[in-house]
This record gives sequence, C-alpha cells and structure tokens, in this order.
Amino acid sequence: MKKLFIPLLFAIIMIGCQQQNQSNNENLNSIKGSQAKTFKKQNSENRNLKPDGTAYTRTELDTMSHQELMALVHEVPNDTIATIGILLYEGYFMLDAMGPLSVLNSTPSAKKLLIGRDKGIVTSSSNVKIQVDYSIDDIDQLDMLVIPGGLVGTYKATKDEELLDWIKKIDQNSKYTVSVCTGAWILGAAGLLEGKEATTNWYKAEEKLSLYGAKYVKKRYTNDGKYWTSAGVSAGIDMSLALVDHILGRNYAESIALNLEYDPSPPFSGGHPDKTDPVINYFMERMYDAGLQPLIDSEK
Amino acid sequence: MKKLFIPLLFAIIMIGCQQQNQSNNENLNSIKGSQAKTFKKQNSENRNLKPDGTAYTRTELDTMSHQELMALVHEVPNDTIATIGILLYEGYFMLDAMGPLSVLNSTPSAKKLLIGRDKGIVTSSSNVKIQVDYSIDDIDQLDMLVIPGGLVGTYKATKDEELLDWIKKIDQNSKYTVSVCTGAWILGAAGLLEGKEATTNWYKAEEKLSLYGAKYVKKRYTNDGKYWTSAGVSAGIDMSLALVDHILGRNYAESIALNLEYDPSPPFSGGHPDKTDPVINYFMERMYDAGLQPLIDSEK
Repeated sequence: MKKLFIPLLFAIIMIGCQQQNQSNNENLNSIKGSQAKTFKKQNSENRNLKPDGTAYTRTELDTMSHQELMALVHEVPNDTIATIGILLYEGYFMLDAMGPLSVLNSTPSAKKLLIGRDKGIVTSSSNVKIQVDYSIDDIDQLDMLVIPGGLVGTYKATKDEELLDWIKKIDQNSKYTVSVCTGAWILGAAGLLEGKEATTNWYKAEEKLSLYGAKYVKKRYTNDGKYWTSAGVSAGIDMSLALVDHILGRNYAESIALNLEYDPSPPFSGGHPDKTDPVINYFMERMYDAGLQPLIDSEK
Repeated sequence: MKKLFIPLLFAIIMIGCQQQNQSNNENLNSIKGSQAKTFKKQNSENRNLKPDGTAYTRTELDTMSHQELMALVHEVPNDTIATIGILLYEGYFMLDAMGPLSVLNSTPSAKKLLIGRDKGIVTSSSNVKIQVDYSIDDIDQLDMLVIPGGLVGTYKATKDEELLDWIKKIDQNSKYTVSVCTGAWILGAAGLLEGKEATTNWYKAEEKLSLYGAKYVKKRYTNDGKYWTSAGVSAGIDMSLALVDHILGRNYAESIALNLEYDPSPPFSGGHPDKTDPVINYFMERMYDAGLQPLIDSEK
C-alpha cells in the first residue's frame, strides 16, 4: 500500500499531536504503559484500550478526529532518528536493501536516503537498476546506516578501502549501524564487529565473522549495542520490524507489519540449512564457493 | 547472495545435463519420484537420497562433478517458462514487485523483464526510482506476468484503459497471470477475475474483489487456473515460492528459499487484521481511506 502516505500522516499529524496534545498524550501513554504490562503476554489484540480497560467500539473510533486517533496510538519513542541511509553498491542483493527499506520507510520524520557507492544508477546482483540521488561523497552523517549483503559485490566491497573509510566515518556518529545478510562481512572488514556478537547469512557464517573478530550467534537477528545484524536476505525484514518496535514502539511496528501484511506463511519448511535437504545445502554452498573462488584466486 | 550466478549455473549446467545425461536423469527422477512420495510427509530433510535409500555423505558429494550434482537435484519441470515480466507503474509498492522478483529471478532459462508503464525511470510509492529497459509498448507476449499492488497508483492503474488493454493482450497468451496485494484490483479491472477465486490485500478485500466479479478467498495466496493472486505485499514472496515449487519442483524452490534465508521469524505476532490490535486495524483502514478518497471524489 502507498507508503508515502503513512510517514506523511504520521509525521505531520504526530508532530501536531505532540505539540497540541502533549499533556493528553502523557496521560494516554502512562495509561497505556501500565496496560501494556498487563497485556504484554497475551496476543497483541486489544492492546489499545479505553482508560476503563474496555475496548473502543467502532462508533467511538469513528467520532475521533485524526488528532485524537493519532494521540491514541502514539507511544513515546525510545529514540529519535532523523536520517536513515541504505548503502547500495554494485552487486548488492536487492531484497537485502528493499526489505528493510519497506519497513523503515514508514518511520515518521526520518529522512530516508538510498546512498550509492557512486552516484547515478546502481545495479543489484539481479540486474535491478536503481537511480540514487546521493553518493557516499555527499553524506557525512546518518542516524542509522543499513548495509545490505550479496556475494561477489559484497566480497569486493570488503576490499574497498574508500568505502570502508566512509562506513567508519558514518559509524562514529550513528545511533544504529546495521547490516543485513553478508553485509556483516562489510561491517567486519570496516573493523566494527571486533569483539561483538553478530549474525550473517548462513554460508560459512562462523568462519566469515571470526575473520573479523566477531562472535557469531545463530539468530535471525541480533544486536550488540548499536550494532544490529541479521541473517540472510529476508531476515532483514524481521530485524527492521524489531528495530522499529525498539525505537518507536509496538503500535508503530504493528502498523507497519499490517501495511506489509507481514504474516509470513512459506509454502514449505526451509530457508535455513537446518530445515533444508542436505544435498540442497551442499549444492548451494558449492554455488557460493564457485562464485567467490575467482575473486579469492585473483588475490593470490 | 549473488542471484545471477544461480540461474546461470542452473541454465547452463541443467541444459548440459539434460542433453548429456538424459537417460541418467530419467532414472534418477523415477527413483526420486517414488522416494518423494515416501518422504513427502516428513520434514524436507534427507529428500535427495541414494538409490538405496541412504543419505549421501559429504565425501560422496565432494567427488561429484557439477553435472552429476545438477543431475541429482534436477527434477522434471511441470512447465516451461521462457519470459517473466513484472509490471512497474508509477506509485506501485516496491516490495510487491521486488519480493517476487527475488524469488523468480532464480528460475533458469526464463528471461526476467521489468516492464514500465512507460520507459525510463519508474518511481515506487516509497520513492525508489528504478530504470526499466522496456515499456508495455515493447512487449507483446509473456509466459508469466506479475502485477504488483500499491494504493493511489494502483487505483489510478485500474482506470488506465491503455494499460488494461495491454494486460488483456498479454493474458491471452500467458501461462500464468499473477497479482500481488492490490495488484488484484488491476487484474479485476481488466476483467480477468470475473467468476474466479482470488485474494488481495486485507483492506476491503471482499468489497474490492466483488466489484470485479471475483470471489474473495481469505488465503495467503491462491490460484484459479493460471490466475495466481496473493494477499498483501509480503505474501508475494510466499506465492512466488509456491509458483516455483509448482513449476520447477521442491529442490529448486528449496534452493531459492535457502538463498533468501526465507525462514521468517517476525519479532511479534501481527501482519493481518486477525492478529493486530483493533485500534491499529482501524487506524490503518482510515489511512488507506484518506489516501483513496481524493481520487474517488474527483470521479464524482
């Protein structure tokens, strides 16, 4: 569904609410805070209740102005994020970037930037050509930096000193430094995962992360302080929802999940070596090996 | 991970295998066919076994040539797909298109085309600018057409007679005509869902589909003959994996799921009105209403 609309409404109306209904918000939030505890262990249904603990009727919601409705769903954020940058480099894996963007795009107020290694058209490993308005030369500061993974392009990025220097610079003042999939290889190569817990794509996960002094944790996503990392590709969606939940609260995160109808139901069990036929695991490992080998050989 | 590599290997090596090892393949497939029945109800692990029913060891797999390995994982496809086109129009929702593309991109041999309503840069609702090499004027035939959804842009597309005519033309000779999310509104407006079972984004799903004579089924994805439709946004990934499973078989589909590490684990229950706080449901509905209302009003 149309994403621009949501941040716009959120941004405009939330800001309006925050200015005009601040005391009202505080009341609502303190009420919701105590309710949240009561209902936290239950299903997420019926979380936003009236002060007397009963559910709003449709008629009651219908009579609310936009401002009142926004005040009702508004939660005090844990943090403020003014800029979110997603790095695109030649050969990144498209869904590594576009999954998180689909989630993070709905965060209010924050400016979202697709930042190319170079300006112009950046081509993903699947040949999707995205026009970016910014290159790394244009950006000196971000509150959140997201680095997607890939295979050949990602390996090359781990050797790109100029890119790594830029990542280190951004990281110095970021509130969140985030990787998806093998994007963790790049964070690692920039020296940012030394001694940290992290996850990455299943392919040689432990071996790859230990190269950079990181401790691999076998999780869908994890964070060690401001460093958030996810497992392969689609795990970036789970991580991004967790990030929004952490930063802006459950109402916001749940709105986004509903916007994405993110109630996944894969047609078969799979998507992780533990759930995949061993021959298919082996086959994919060998494909990745074959993809990387020419690069590794060329370094000798 | 690098996608190009997979179709390339699959395409080149599979074709090689099919020519050179055809009788071998037939043997393997008839063996695997009977095994598949035996193991179908179990976890997908250990599906590809030796003819004697035992698992391959790592050493045995290591001694296999690429061709032998490909012959082992190859299954006789149900169908052949030479061209897959994903339609991009102004204001489409990015993940509606990019989720399925991430899956379908790995199908061997098939040429994948991003097709703009117009040539050049197509801008998604979240302001992602993709350069397309083809417009609808360039394409007369596709084996599979995928139509993403959105909100305002999608509603406008349902009124775009030239676009609808093109969709009808492509549908005449397609093997699969597919929609994601509110893309079903467009299929419906083209008259292609009349009397058919279909699903779509949760927002006014039944009301919207009944406008076009379709029967709404509350499923993550569904098909009625060659018409495959999915629920909102992320459901396009589930549907696309089911499509690959249907067309190319489980080994292929499982390889792609592993490539995407598609073993989703949302950080909280949600993503469907049945699993979302009622106030958040209401809030999102009202946001969508507010997005569409100016368009509906302008038609009066």
